[in-house]
Amino acid sequence: MSKRNIIVDTDPGHDDAIAIMLLLAHQEQFNILGFVTVAGNQTSDKVTTNMLKISELTRCAAPVVRGSLKPLTRELETGAEAHGISGMDGPDLPFPTRLPLDMDSIEFLYSTIMEAREKVTIVALGPLTNIAKLLLAHPEIKGNIEEISLMGGGINKGNKTATAEFNIYVDPEAAEIVYSSGIPIIMSGLDVTEKANIYPSDWEDLHTKGIASRFTASLLDFYAKYAKEHGFEGSSLHDPCATAYLIDPTLFEGTFYSVHIETKGELTRGMTVADKRSFAQAPLNVKVLTDIDRQRFIQLVRDSILTLDSQLK
Amino acid sequence: MSKRNIIVDTDPGHDDAIAIMLLLAHQEQFNILGFVTVAGNQTSDKVTTNMLKISELTRCAAPVVRGSLKPLTRELETGAEAHGISGMDGPDLPFPTRLPLDMDSIEFLYSTIMEAREKVTIVALGPLTNIAKLLLAHPEIKGNIEEISLMGGGINKGNKTATAEFNIYVDPEAAEIVYSSGIPIIMSGLDVTEKANIYPSDWEDLHTKGIASRFTASLLDFYAKYAKEHGFEGSSLHDPCATAYLIDPTLFEGTFYSVHIETKGELTRGMTVADKRSFAQAPLNVKVLTDIDRQRFIQLVRDSILTLDSQLK
Amino acid sequence: MSKRNIIVDTDPGHDDAIAIMLLLAHQEQFNILGFVTVAGNQTSDKVTTNMLKISELTRCAAPVVRGSLKPLTRELETGAEAHGISGMDGPDLPFPTRLPLDMDSIEFLYSTIMEAREKVTIVALGPLTNIAKLLLAHPEIKGNIEEISLMGGGINKGNKTATAEFNIYVDPEAAEIVYSSGIPIIMSGLDVTEKANIYPSDWEDLHTKGIASRFTASLLDFYAKYAKEHGFEGSSLHDPCATAYLIDPTLFEGTFYSVHIETKGELTRGMTVADKRSFAQAPLNVKVLTDIDRQRFIQLVRDSILTLDSQLK
Amino acid sequence: MSKRNIIVDTDPGHDDAIAIMLLLAHQEQFNILGFVTVAGNQTSDKVTTNMLKISELTRCAAPVVRGSLKPLTRELETGAEAHGISGMDGPDLPFPTRLPLDMDSIEFLYSTIMEAREKVTIVALGPLTNIAKLLLAHPEIKGNIEEISLMGGGINKGNKTATAEFNIYVDPEAAEIVYSSGIPIIMSGLDVTEKANIYPSDWEDLHTKGIASRFTASLLDFYAKYAKEHGFEGSSLHDPCATAYLIDPTLFEGTFYSVHIETKGELTRGMTVADKRSFAQAPLNVKVLTDIDRQRFIQLVRDSILTLDSQLK
Repeated sequence: MSKRNIIVDTDPGHDDAIAIMLLLAHQEQFNILGFVTVAGNQTSDKVTTNMLKISELTRCAAPVVRGSLKPLTRELETGAEAHGISGMDGPDLPFPTRLPLDMDSIEFLYSTIMEAREKVTIVALGPLTNIAKLLLAHPEIKGNIEEISLMGGGINKGNKTATAEFNIYVDPEAAEIVYSSGIPIIMSGLDVTEKANIYPSDWEDLHTKGIASRFTASLLDFYAKYAKEHGFEGSSLHDPCATAYLIDPTLFEGTFYSVHIETKGELTRGMTVADKRSFAQAPLNVKVLTDIDRQRFIQLVRDSILTLDSQLK
Repeated sequence: MSKRNIIVDTDPGHDDAIAIMLLLAHQEQFNILGFVTVAGNQTSDKVTTNMLKISELTRCAAPVVRGSLKPLTRELETGAEAHGISGMDGPDLPFPTRLPLDMDSIEFLYSTIMEAREKVTIVALGPLTNIAKLLLAHPEIKGNIEEISLMGGGINKGNKTATAEFNIYVDPEAAEIVYSSGIPIIMSGLDVTEKANIYPSDWEDLHTKGIASRFTASLLDFYAKYAKEHGFEGSSLHDPCATAYLIDPTLFEGTFYSVHIETKGELTRGMTVADKRSFAQAPLNVKVLTDIDRQRFIQLVRDSILTLDSQLK
Repeated sequence: MSKRNIIVDTDPGHDDAIAIMLLLAHQEQFNILGFVTVAGNQTSDKVTTNMLKISELTRCAAPVVRGSLKPLTRELETGAEAHGISGMDGPDLPFPTRLPLDMDSIEFLYSTIMEAREKVTIVALGPLTNIAKLLLAHPEIKGNIEEISLMGGGINKGNKTATAEFNIYVDPEAAEIVYSSGIPIIMSGLDVTEKANIYPSDWEDLHTKGIASRFTASLLDFYAKYAKEHGFEGSSLHDPCATAYLIDPTLFEGTFYSVHIETKGELTRGMTVADKRSFAQAPLNVKVLTDIDRQRFIQLVRDSILTLDSQLK
Repeated sequence: MSKRNIIVDTDPGHDDAIAIMLLLAHQEQFNILGFVTVAGNQTSDKVTTNMLKISELTRCAAPVVRGSLKPLTRELETGAEAHGISGMDGPDLPFPTRLPLDMDSIEFLYSTIMEAREKVTIVALGPLTNIAKLLLAHPEIKGNIEEISLMGGGINKGNKTATAEFNIYVDPEAAEIVYSSGIPIIMSGLDVTEKANIYPSDWEDLHTKGIASRFTASLLDFYAKYAKEHGFEGSSLHDPCATAYLIDPTLFEGTFYSVHIETKGELTRGMTVADKRSFAQAPLNVKVLTDIDRQRFIQLVRDSILTLDSQLK
């Protein structure tokens, strides 16, 4: 079987880092064409630096491209309360020695996808700003995108507000452009990601293992603080759901819904609105993941990290 | 125990009629001060006529007052698809011989509530236009209102749209004025009312009984059509939940939430937004009914109608 | 000729005070039924206190009624930057010994207007909150209102924002209810009021005259500071235009337009939108004053104040 | 003096066609790099066909590129009432034999501007959809754009609505992206274009002259109908203002304002909001043309068309 072409759009981010390592541990499945950053969990400078650090730690050769500095039409609001000042507080990695690719991110996305021999799958782990710009500027590219596996939204749940998840809240206009694009979307929203919990006992032993394990353990040590302070039982591995789905979709259950984004609401900015009425007739444009086999998922995460450990020896 | 003062704000409406009959069958509990109509299921002319018909059929002496012709700031959208051209299609009642009270509805509400010796409970079965006007014009009246038991909204459900229930959708600005008033609110929303289903076998025998029974049966015959066409199993007795709660609150389960109304959204106009996040801290202003003992509820409905039958002999 | 019935809705306010004195100096023309206050230039407590002070200084027996504490649906924003901490900074008047009428303001408006033998004219000098509540609660009252002479808005001008005048900005929903009510409206907006300028030489000599003159002079001394700091040539006597029009409409020129209020805009909240297109066909609901004979207007103001002086000897 | 690099973004359109001919008659001043179409006056198919027809008629070799099919986030509303079914009704030109350039329009704009030796001036005669997409996708391009001379908006005037001019109304989100970009903008809005009137006596004789003249005369014959039906005295040469300004800026007077676009308003969608308050402090981002020497302007139009006639012999 041929490898699947992947572009990762990301704002690392603790859970972004783990999501990316899952992909890197399964290079037999994936042909990673590049990483494009997007302002979200932190500013563009910070998430781009973080992405370069992850690349260096994992010795990944795929290009890192600096993307959007802010949402399409709104000012940036970051997720510093969860991810700290650097956007990836906790691990103490050396400042990167590589530079991002000297190329405009939309140009990179456009030319990379157009020139790929087979369709490209996009993994989107942050606000959908870059993807929306790509689709606005080059709508004909849709035919070359296999699907978008994204972390974002929640059908009956919010975290940034009562109704909205952070990634969609930050750039709702971009999200609606992506959701209404016609490209197949697999949505790992809070409905499933808040069930993808990891507990300290799941990662304690990683502290004494290899490079990827120790990085992961210190990410999770920091990340767990926010969860604890907010009264959550475990730490939700939001972004890793979007990559785990590509590695092994049998971990998940899901339903097709008609989903669109509220961009005008006062209490509902960035809500992913699903029409669940039995008599609704709008096209079912999104596969919403609703459940996860947490045991097997955690096993996949651990196995992946340990695999990376051995690759990085 | 002294009787509870009740004012009914209503737009009959099939389920409004049944809800009202539940109250009338329990006059040992309630002192009904009047009925105020509101445009909603149908226009003001029609729902006022329907209310007068119900009054005459049930020989109820409480005054009927004609209220708002349209929502606070929006044009009226009616629920003709569910309730028919008259707003209460099905039964063939004679045209009423009584007239509505010759009094301004807000004046009626204000003077009636201010002059009552004990606090008044409002049952609200339609859009909240009248109540909002009352609270805007006379905010000091809040201290004289015991609570508002209303049919409206839905935490994770909509019927008029994917996110909004009809009553709140029609006049969201009025709803937010009521919800944020500080008056205790018991919300019978779609979360509970779509579990308050009645099936043909529950009412078939009523066709051959007394006046109230035959009226109820022909209401339900018509009302069931809409449900059937929309793929629902049974017919939801929405409004009767709001009065059944006052008769016997042990039929229900509920939770306190912070609930406010979206008035600006494009996909979410009239959504009752509840903040369910574990770490949310807004005041819990609404008791949201979430479950119902359907068996006992249907028994209450049937018993009430049969009681009325004997009163009306 | 019979006197004209007048109710003044006001948030004094420096220019409110002068506007009111114009009316009081022409009692041969007007039958003043009462003053209702509204939160605007300052909070309700402050503007009500100011209104009572004006009443006592001018020995006016008409009732003062405390009205709305806040706009219909929004939080209050005051005009403290123009009117100071008290809302009427400058003159040092004794704390009032009268109390406001012990009556709900909408009840007062409703019963006063309904019971008046002839139609009532409303002078509205602040946000239109009270009038909107009155019209919402008692729409049938429209037939008893002669017209509304209001200070508010601006067709091509704003002061609070680039597009909105303060009074309309503060409560745009209320304003739209009034503007679309069908009641004849005479709008003294910034188009005319920014031409109704008074200069220090126009009031300097008042400092040494009677009670009303000295009050006026100290109002204008303070009021001129804001104008000077904002680069205006003179001080605009906004509110007095609305009362001067009733005393002598020949001072003004005006045009009929279709005018409605923007309530949703981000840059245009509270804009009075006039349709000036030659081919527009919406009903012309507002007489917009566009020009003023400044010389004669200032003469009217001075004459009125001096008349009051002699009445108050 | 070196020629100025020009890209024309357009939705022809009667006045677009004349605006373009003005440029073509002054090729000593301009280096036309290409024409990009945008849906506006009519659909993309139609305006692209029209642009190709203009190119063929005028034997212009610059590439024609097909741009946006619809506004950024809204559905397209066309200007068929003014421009007819084809978008350029009136003249009977042969169907074009050339094809548009086989290239994505944003790719064309990006590469053309980036590769030009000197900065490029954009003439924008339709909705600003293409330019907004370009700026979203490639923000670094701003440094290579000299200025944008656009037809759109109106400070105290609207045509599509009471407050909005057609081009901005159609895609307000795009307009705000362009207006807030920091690129120098010269705005030929209704303030000036409704003074740029042409009367039948100005073009009657063109019917019997050369190719460009006869084309122009039949454009104006049709175009005058709309003006006449709407009660305008003459026909406003909207778009030609934006090109005439580049040919001879001394024809115009203008003022710098802070201008932004209302995207949320109900009555003010697409309004170009200028802050004219004397004490306003926002950056003056737009040069708003306010007056025109109509005589000299009409002379320029006629001279240009006659020049083209002789070139096309």
